[in-house]
Amino acid sequence: MVTKHQNLLSIKNLSTKQIELILGNSQTHFIHNQKKLINTVLQGKILVNFFFENSTRTRTSFEIAAKNLGAEVVNIDISLSSLKKGESLIDTAKTINAMLPDFVAIRHNASGIVELLAKYIDASVINAGDGTNEHPSQALLDAFTILQNKNRIAGLEIAICGDVLHSRVARSNILLLSKLGAKIRLIMPPTLIANGFETWVKNNWGIKVYQSLEEGIKDVDVIMMLRIQQERMLGCFIPSMAEYYKLFGLDHQKLKLAKKDVIVLHPGPINREVEISSDLADDKNFSLILNQVEAGVAVRQAILEFLAS
Amino acid sequence: MVTKHQNLLSIKNLSTKQIELILGNSQTHFIHNQKKLINTVLQGKILVNFFFENSTRTRTSFEIAAKNLGAEVVNIDISLSSLKKGESLIDTAKTINAMLPDFVAIRHNASGIVELLAKYIDASVINAGDGTNEHPSQALLDAFTILQNKNRIAGLEIAICGDVLHSRVARSNILLLSKLGAKIRLIMPPTLIANGFETWVKNNWGIKVYQSLEEGIKDVDVIMMLRIQQERMLGCFIPSMAEYYKLFGLDHQKLKLAKKDVIVLHPGPINREVEISSDLADDKNFSLILNQVEAGVAVRQAILEFLAS
Amino acid sequence: MVTKHQNLLSIKNLSTKQIELILGNSQTHFIHNQKKLINTVLQGKILVNFFFENSTRTRTSFEIAAKNLGAEVVNIDISLSSLKKGESLIDTAKTINAMLPDFVAIRHNASGIVELLAKYIDASVINAGDGTNEHPSQALLDAFTILQNKNRIAGLEIAICGDVLHSRVARSNILLLSKLGAKIRLIMPPTLIANGFETWVKNNWGIKVYQSLEEGIKDVDVIMMLRIQQERMLGCFIPSMAEYYKLFGLDHQKLKLAKKDVIVLHPGPINREVEISSDLADDKNFSLILNQVEAGVAVRQAILEFLAS
Repeated sequence: MVTKHQNLLSIKNLSTKQIELILGNSQTHFIHNQKKLINTVLQGKILVNFFFENSTRTRTSFEIAAKNLGAEVVNIDISLSSLKKGESLIDTAKTINAMLPDFVAIRHNASGIVELLAKYIDASVINAGDGTNEHPSQALLDAFTILQNKNRIAGLEIAICGDVLHSRVARSNILLLSKLGAKIRLIMPPTLIANGFETWVKNNWGIKVYQSLEEGIKDVDVIMMLRIQQERMLGCFIPSMAEYYKLFGLDHQKLKLAKKDVIVLHPGPINREVEISSDLADDKNFSLILNQVEAGVAVRQAILEFLAS
Repeated sequence: MVTKHQNLLSIKNLSTKQIELILGNSQTHFIHNQKKLINTVLQGKILVNFFFENSTRTRTSFEIAAKNLGAEVVNIDISLSSLKKGESLIDTAKTINAMLPDFVAIRHNASGIVELLAKYIDASVINAGDGTNEHPSQALLDAFTILQNKNRIAGLEIAICGDVLHSRVARSNILLLSKLGAKIRLIMPPTLIANGFETWVKNNWGIKVYQSLEEGIKDVDVIMMLRIQQERMLGCFIPSMAEYYKLFGLDHQKLKLAKKDVIVLHPGPINREVEISSDLADDKNFSLILNQVEAGVAVRQAILEFLAS
Repeated sequence: MVTKHQNLLSIKNLSTKQIELILGNSQTHFIHNQKKLINTVLQGKILVNFFFENSTRTRTSFEIAAKNLGAEVVNIDISLSSLKKGESLIDTAKTINAMLPDFVAIRHNASGIVELLAKYIDASVINAGDGTNEHPSQALLDAFTILQNKNRIAGLEIAICGDVLHSRVARSNILLLSKLGAKIRLIMPPTLIANGFETWVKNNWGIKVYQSLEEGIKDVDVIMMLRIQQERMLGCFIPSMAEYYKLFGLDHQKLKLAKKDVIVLHPGPINREVEISSDLADDKNFSLILNQVEAGVAVRQAILEFLAS
């Protein structure tokens, strides 16, 4: 009776045409949101937000996107759930599926788990971030933000800086921006470069890897700063936050090495004076951090619409 | 000004005619849900989910049922509530009542508390499970699932297996299925049979009590497995989970003792290899566990509609 | 593109005309709510409940008010939020703002923080209680409840009793009721009167301060009891709850000192036998505590409508 719907599990599975369709529709939603137009195209549909990691911004963004299109949202708070009673993750997914939702957005700290759970769910499953694997809606909103400001992605020099190796945001962005023809540079502290990673990246995508922020951002069009997971990094990979900031934190001074019209992105929440100077984060001439948030709602509306069609 | 509305506090208070009305309308909702038809019959109505025990499945089921009918849902998370500030339960119920909701679904671990609180609430109160007392919507969805598969309840041999004595699911099902003419068998480990319980059950409902799963399920049409509350049982009533599984866990081997077309129900969440073998739980030829979940949404829609009329 | 909307941060900023407009419209909503009329005037609008302090009643009241007008509500549970990841409060406010909500109701335990955050939010910000500063929607619903029962506020003798100094409810009520021409009396245990407070109050608003409940409520029209914050008070300012109740708790006996048709208010949740006797709290001849709750939803509907216009 119920047929399996399309998922958004990774950037890998999206064709360039599908990506362009989503990004194009995002622009329509972006304008409609600013004009506060009422849209009820998803009336009667239900999105289940199934989050195993705390996330104000992603959960709220999906919730507002769905409600902007007239859909209903059910938030499942995992700390309150029957998982505590020992129910397996797969059984919980099957249970939610049996309630016939239309969309299920899943965030979990284990890589690959969303793809696994999607096998048991007939509704459209959206990967809202799984471990160090993928975060496709974030990459789409980043691409949308770049497009809004540069009018193209092909041919742009884009530097991604931070713990690229463990970042699902970086992974999804590398896949997406490469697909759209950008030239990617990755900037990482030497301690964060795994054995063989540099070679692998180079062989597969023609991506350049830098161990110096100054070198890496030279003449780039876009800088994408990643969030430092303080709890994981400190002591292990980085001597101190101050040291990290000095070497890999972005500020107006270092920014002069990039192109004059460079733009700066960050998936948020930002650590001020760690990845980025407070001044630069707030400088609307360069920083598009809040534009990304606004874009996020529009892009997620386009994703929901894409999956529903 | 405000008049008191009908409640669903227990199966006891429902007439056979009312039960049949709810089960009949459930079938309509079940089909509409599968067809994804939009229904806004409860537009403008508000359901408050007032849960003092964690429950993904029941809370979400009520939430989706209400939203499927166009109603709004307000979830009150008790761990965050002013109950922490020392407000009494009755004062909280009166406070919620004064906000003029249309439905209040209450779950609490104390038997009888829902009936008590209902005295202070003008909205339709639904008992979503109170202690070891009743869980009427679960019994209705179980009956609905049996009906969907057997086309009748009268005359069926139905075995309920597990800690029947402390199970609100069992209690509500015994009341409902007896009322509809089923022949009930209860299967319990000897340590879980309270003094005088066996005699009382026999005298009141003509129910048979078994201390052996094999004997109890002989030639039955339906087996309803109950969830083992591991935290309460272990050490006290049951030597070990493995021992329980060996004696009272259901698997394909034991299932051969029942009728060929026997169906297996479980209110969930299941403990695999405790109450039921993992294989059997997933065997759609016998196990209706996920059908029960889907039925649950439709039955709760019928309940809300019934209470609103 | 987005223009800044009107806020409700404090009673201070409201003109008498605006107050009268809100109170007038509250009456319309109050009647519509009792008649269960459907109103979708705020369809397509989104209220974000952004609560940093637990509050069943205020959060639920805003949520039901918004839903009664057809708006969508997004609850942001701060204990689950990215604030845990070290994001600053202002960055979180900017993030939520970038998602283009229409209303943001904020509660926080630091005085002045809501006014600060409102600077970063284009949506209409509602102060849902900030520290010991203000709680304007509570004062408006209190005034509405008095009006419903006394048909006027000007000239009424109104006693506010308890820890006035640290109560945002008291502060907002003093400002509002003074503005509307009531004669305010404050009743406080001597230990709760700060240095110079008495003189300051007298000079500024012609308010009388009493250290005895019996003296303070003599011939008053309205008594507003405040909630004792047991965790903060005990040992510090008050020897025991029993002692407080004896001296400053209101009961039928003491109530005889007030006017015959005196009414009693309390913002809730009440501490029975601490601020007020259990009998009196439940005596509908005097106590309007539950009327305040019902009024709260209607007044908040009027506030949302006022801010949206």
